Amino acid sequence: MERNLQIRLARRPIGEPSVDDFRFVEEAMPAPGAGEVLLQTLWLSLDPYMRGRMSEARSYVAPVAIDAVMVGGTVGKVLASNDPRFAVGDLALGYGGWQRYSVEPADALQKLDSAMAHPSYALGILGMPGQTAYCALNDIGAPKAGETLVVSAAAGAVGQVAGQLGKIAGCRVVGVAGGSEKCRYVVEELGFHACIDRKTESLDEALARYCPDGIDIYFDNTAGAILEAVMKRLRVGARIPLVGLIEQYNAVQMPKGPNLAPLLVARAKIEGFLVTDHAAHTRDFLAAVGGLLQKGKLAYREDVVEGLEAAPEAFIGLLRGANLGKLLVRAA
Amino acid sequence: MERNLQIRLARRPIGEPSVDDFRFVEEAMPAPGAGEVLLQTLWLSLDPYMRGRMSEARSYVAPVAIDAVMVGGTVGKVLASNDPRFAVGDLALGYGGWQRYSVEPADALQKLDSAMAHPSYALGILGMPGQTAYCALNDIGAPKAGETLVVSAAAGAVGQVAGQLGKIAGCRVVGVAGGSEKCRYVVEELGFHACIDRKTESLDEALARYCPDGIDIYFDNTAGAILEAVMKRLRVGARIPLVGLIEQYNAVQMPKGPNLAPLLVARAKIEGFLVTDHAAHTRDFLAAVGGLLQKGKLAYREDVVEGLEAAPEAFIGLLRGANLGKLLVRAA
Repeated sequence: MERNLQIRLARRPIGEPSVDDFRFVEEAMPAPGAGEVLLQTLWLSLDPYMRGRMSEARSYVAPVAIDAVMVGGTVGKVLASNDPRFAVGDLALGYGGWQRYSVEPADALQKLDSAMAHPSYALGILGMPGQTAYCALNDIGAPKAGETLVVSAAAGAVGQVAGQLGKIAGCRVVGVAGGSEKCRYVVEELGFHACIDRKTESLDEALARYCPDGIDIYFDNTAGAILEAVMKRLRVGARIPLVGLIEQYNAVQMPKGPNLAPLLVARAKIEGFLVTDHAAHTRDFLAAVGGLLQKGKLAYREDVVEGLEAAPEAFIGLLRGANLGKLLVRAA
Repeated sequence: MERNLQIRLARRPIGEPSVDDFRFVEEAMPAPGAGEVLLQTLWLSLDPYMRGRMSEARSYVAPVAIDAVMVGGTVGKVLASNDPRFAVGDLALGYGGWQRYSVEPADALQKLDSAMAHPSYALGILGMPGQTAYCALNDIGAPKAGETLVVSAAAGAVGQVAGQLGKIAGCRVVGVAGGSEKCRYVVEELGFHACIDRKTESLDEALARYCPDGIDIYFDNTAGAILEAVMKRLRVGARIPLVGLIEQYNAVQMPKGPNLAPLLVARAKIEGFLVTDHAAHTRDFLAAVGGLLQKGKLAYREDVVEGLEAAPEAFIGLLRGANLGKLLVRAA
């Protein structure tokens, strides 16, 4: 009889997580109770926010408890259902976590169209990362034609969408990414005006070259050195949606931020963004981004890792910037 | 025959300005040309922004040239006028700078009601500092009844107005000021809920005590250590109007700012504010704050220094936080 495989949090990492911070556990297959659904995980999403869940520092949600299954968004296939809304064989978007099988309340699941060409997109461009890009760019960034938009982690799940949406809004879009392969992808496939390789280029010099008139919007996935360099070139009225802090998720001591004088000089703003506050805009987002995707107006790349067992190493790599595109685990 | 006394910028200060950075010059009385007005300076406003004008670092306006008269807002009495809008004896608000007499284009002057009980208020609560408080609090801070507002430099020109307006809007207002005399003023005369003495109290502990449920608005006149402490206690949706950076105006090297992770966690924003962008709101401001002042709903204190010759030392003291209330020089 099939058994469940779970990846649990073994201990809280100090600095960069290691594979020893995770523990593999075999369990009996779970059984759904009243109103619950049993799912087989097809796709597990790996996202930088998970690093925060591994720590006890104050955040917007509670951390994962020691020895609990690591959390994560999933696309699963219904194996058994105690809710009339889900039938065996249905696909559903849920929050099943790092495990082969999960039981979830039907209320927490969202049925996916079984004819969907790429169900995994529900974890990426048509899911949380895509909506993050759409809402943070529009609500905080408020792009206008002719403006200059800089996007960090430009080849990542959120950055690739944010930059393309900025381009469609008429912005000149400059990406920042790590490595020549990513930069090539950002310029050649995503169509950004330019992409700065943070591993080999001087940020100050490259931003001066590619943003000679300054920066109107900085879509910030990283904070750290890139934010610091951008701050020196803000145009009056600049907006910085602060969407991620990937440069410091592994920090043992919280680093200082950039000097804030440019905010005053430029009457600019930095505003923190969390997609869960924007659930009311999900329909707009899906109509807009889904429509663009269908019309072939958006490029989108996934970085797929095979097998649940590979999740810890893939996640550690994500925090190092090893992935190109939305990182996913194909679990079945 | 009466001669003019000018205080000019002798050299650019490195770090804290010294009296040797200024030079006293006697000049012939200036004569107004066509469309110009000759004024005797009655009041000179001393404000922290002047430190920026002494430096060449990028800012929102050009620096004062070496050997040019130090700039500054003034209230003057018209001694001669080549413009029909101004008659001898009129009072006018202008930008005469650090000198006993000035010639200004009539277009750059604003006539004051000669019956005004306190013409100097046009440089303070009813002028640029008051409008800064009003517009930054309302436009960026957006105070709501029941919220917690923290104001730094609470006994200063801007802080004392911002905090009282917050109180009138129904906020619980906590000030931060340097020294027990200022703190007493802030609580007893301005009616703030509490005031933290940054010279003797731990900011972290005091903010935890006075803002047990966190901080909704931080009206930031200082940046630096106070901002850093506030950042740790932001409530979800917090707003930080960044109005001044007095903690770092004398810095030789720009210091780093606070860690920005709390902005993301709290979906909060920091936004730079410059009052000159808000000229369209001057009428609203004067109606609102002027009305409250007339009804006795606002306390307001000036810190008056006698004689133009005292301006350099008074200004150096301002940057150290020596003043209590709006710092002014009575020049005649």
